Amino acid sequence: MSKTWSVDEHLEDILRSIRPLEPIELNLLDAQGCALVEDVIVPAALPPFDNSSMDGYAVRIADVEGASEEFPAVLSVIGDIAAGSAGLPTVSSGQAARIMTGAPLPPGAEAVVPVEWTDGGTGSGPADAMRAHSSAPQDASGQVRVHRPVVPRQHVRAKGSDVRPGTVALRAGTVLGPAQVGLLAAVGRGAVTVRPRPRVVVLSTGSELVSPGEPLGPGQIHDANSFVLTAAARAAGAIPYRVGAVADDADTLRSTIEDQLIRADLLVTSGGVSVGAYDVVKEALSRVEAFGADEDGEPADGASDAVEFRRLAMQPGKPQGFGLIGPDRTPILTLPGNPVSAYVSFELFVRPAVRALMGQEPVRRPTVSARLSGESELTSPEGKRQFLRGAYTPPAEDEEMGSVSPVGGSGSHLIAALAQADALIDIPEKTSRVVPGREVTVVPLD
Amino acid sequence: MSKTWSVDEHLEDILRSIRPLEPIELNLLDAQGCALVEDVIVPAALPPFDNSSMDGYAVRIADVEGASEEFPAVLSVIGDIAAGSAGLPTVSSGQAARIMTGAPLPPGAEAVVPVEWTDGGTGSGPADAMRAHSSAPQDASGQVRVHRPVVPRQHVRAKGSDVRPGTVALRAGTVLGPAQVGLLAAVGRGAVTVRPRPRVVVLSTGSELVSPGEPLGPGQIHDANSFVLTAAARAAGAIPYRVGAVADDADTLRSTIEDQLIRADLLVTSGGVSVGAYDVVKEALSRVEAFGADEDGEPADGASDAVEFRRLAMQPGKPQGFGLIGPDRTPILTLPGNPVSAYVSFELFVRPAVRALMGQEPVRRPTVSARLSGESELTSPEGKRQFLRGAYTPPAEDEEMGSVSPVGGSGSHLIAALAQADALIDIPEKTSRVVPGREVTVVPLD
Repeated sequence: MSKTWSVDEHLEDILRSIRPLEPIELNLLDAQGCALVEDVIVPAALPPFDNSSMDGYAVRIADVEGASEEFPAVLSVIGDIAAGSAGLPTVSSGQAARIMTGAPLPPGAEAVVPVEWTDGGTGSGPADAMRAHSSAPQDASGQVRVHRPVVPRQHVRAKGSDVRPGTVALRAGTVLGPAQVGLLAAVGRGAVTVRPRPRVVVLSTGSELVSPGEPLGPGQIHDANSFVLTAAARAAGAIPYRVGAVADDADTLRSTIEDQLIRADLLVTSGGVSVGAYDVVKEALSRVEAFGADEDGEPADGASDAVEFRRLAMQPGKPQGFGLIGPDRTPILTLPGNPVSAYVSFELFVRPAVRALMGQEPVRRPTVSARLSGESELTSPEGKRQFLRGAYTPPAEDEEMGSVSPVGGSGSHLIAALAQADALIDIPEKTSRVVPGREVTVVPLD
Repeated sequence: MSKTWSVDEHLEDILRSIRPLEPIELNLLDAQGCALVEDVIVPAALPPFDNSSMDGYAVRIADVEGASEEFPAVLSVIGDIAAGSAGLPTVSSGQAARIMTGAPLPPGAEAVVPVEWTDGGTGSGPADAMRAHSSAPQDASGQVRVHRPVVPRQHVRAKGSDVRPGTVALRAGTVLGPAQVGLLAAVGRGAVTVRPRPRVVVLSTGSELVSPGEPLGPGQIHDANSFVLTAAARAAGAIPYRVGAVADDADTLRSTIEDQLIRADLLVTSGGVSVGAYDVVKEALSRVEAFGADEDGEPADGASDAVEFRRLAMQPGKPQGFGLIGPDRTPILTLPGNPVSAYVSFELFVRPAVRALMGQEPVRRPTVSARLSGESELTSPEGKRQFLRGAYTPPAEDEEMGSVSPVGGSGSHLIAALAQADALIDIPEKTSRVVPGREVTVVPLD
């Protein structure tokens, strides 16, 4: 009998063989969700110039000293400075420039008086707002009454106060969410170098499989696995390609896989990996033959394409396979065929592989501790690590720990229960029973 | 002075006006992430027939009673039943059918003996596995020695044991993740009726804005907002269309919006909503004129297209606008132009609107309590609800509550700090200071 592998041994073997994808330059929005491979250095100060943080009037301090509503400072308005203005007027003594939020502080001006602290150039009481330039162009000239003094640099955002040139905006490894995309745009980066999303080719195997929407003949069932695994690959951040179900014929399977290698960064199959006489994945891939062999039928680089099939100390998901195939040594994970086994195997092995290809840490899902709720104790086969489906309740405000209740039984064909679960309950190999109230390890799924 | 709105009043007004999108039928994988609008009833039993949970031999109970390795039951193998087999042999007394996992239990058989409890038909000791049918076709006939008895129905999955026909597989409102997609496939649904992802058109306004990657002239800055908001819309589940920056000209803006209405379920703008003389969004949209007017220039349905501009008791994000425009009464949210204000406004108002369009609850992000860490107290303008950027640390194993530390200051132009934050700290209107160690409300962002 060959070795029985632990869950961690199998995962570590996979991760040892997987290299992050080669970086590529992507347009900023295409890079969302990807990890930077460069430290992004700020090329120029942000903001690039001193600018106003308010809609108001750019003034000299001495001109508005002691100003009040009763005794306003009356200044000549020398023009408008809108955001984006280039040629700036100089503000001299007794003058003000009407200025908009984000517009450059003009030479001579030392601070900005918000429009609400003035009459808005209307000659009447305190203003709520400026009148639109299009309807009242005269407000860019004439006089403004200022009702309050300002201190130097008040309502001015200094050049470089957000980021200074030469500093690191974002470190290599940062995963780009909306705010990071925004910062990169703000410092002028229209494209960045990241690890791309891996292309994951999903196929299920089984002569009994029929596409959903088509009628079932005797002995047939609908193909669920290629759908579960495609959806899970997308949720993990990959670009999935669903090939669908392949019949239990080794030659068909090998040629399908060979065809798909061209667009795969990772291949995932389900079914055909156990001890049956028609376990075609095992049959097709355990022979030492090369995909993409050269003209003499020799492996392209001398490496063999054998996938190693293993028995894991795990329930569900005992039969697993992993290898590197084809000219690019593309990783392939062969999962068992029961839908629940396939999905649990995806979470434990494929998702980490996808994250490793994307260069994102941690590759494993975070776990939490929770108390087992419910009335019945859980039993688990000794010597096997069991992953039960559960419904997790996070801790309430005054609790240290949430709770989890098992959903459905341990049967690996119970996909209805899987669809009601939002977590896996991880029962260690040595544990054979867990009574309600005991602490267990839970893997929340999203 | 017009009324000052609270954050909640503004959000409630938006949500009151927004109806979930009309349901459409989508192919199963296109429906991932969407909410069902139908109860999905199981049309037929799952599994559709009694089937084997193991690779082994289908037998009659009496034939293997008392069997052991020393005194095996010797049965005639009458053929193979692979998964997907249609015409099934009948198992009579003294006979066994070799059967694969998932294959239908043949008539006459009462249980399945796993291959590991037999000699696999080889005539030697206990088998590890079946030999592949392609290399040893003789194993589908001949004799098998069975080493252990079975009880009735052992290793048989009963028809309907996963789901029974007529029961509800998934309720209306369920959001389709990988497991739900899998269940729908398993019950034969190739397409389902869901609320689709809303198409969100994003445009920023400002004559000072230049696309990232292009050089800056005097007084210019790079457009960050259309990137932040597009990325945030995608992260919220929408299909975003980034129009980019529009100059501060009311006619250009109106015609751009009119052009975009055709593909928008929701419009989001940034900038131009405050009290300045060039606040073009306010100027273009507060006039009571109709988009998509009929030939006489009359509003299509008599309704006006005015967007209501408001002052909120909020920092950042004081100036906000909301309205329904065009022939389809498309919702438009006009956000302020500072990048941090725009992003915080998106989280507080646009994200809930997107989720309401998708029919997904809750529309608001969940909040948690956390202790304020760090050395300095926070100050907050009284009468304004403040949303500071923070770094949140979830509670450790033995803690009831996590902690949060402020990142950067309160300046609404500090996009570098925003990119380091993973949470918002929500300081109520009445609170003007918070000392370290005090409990605050935190909104974790993803």
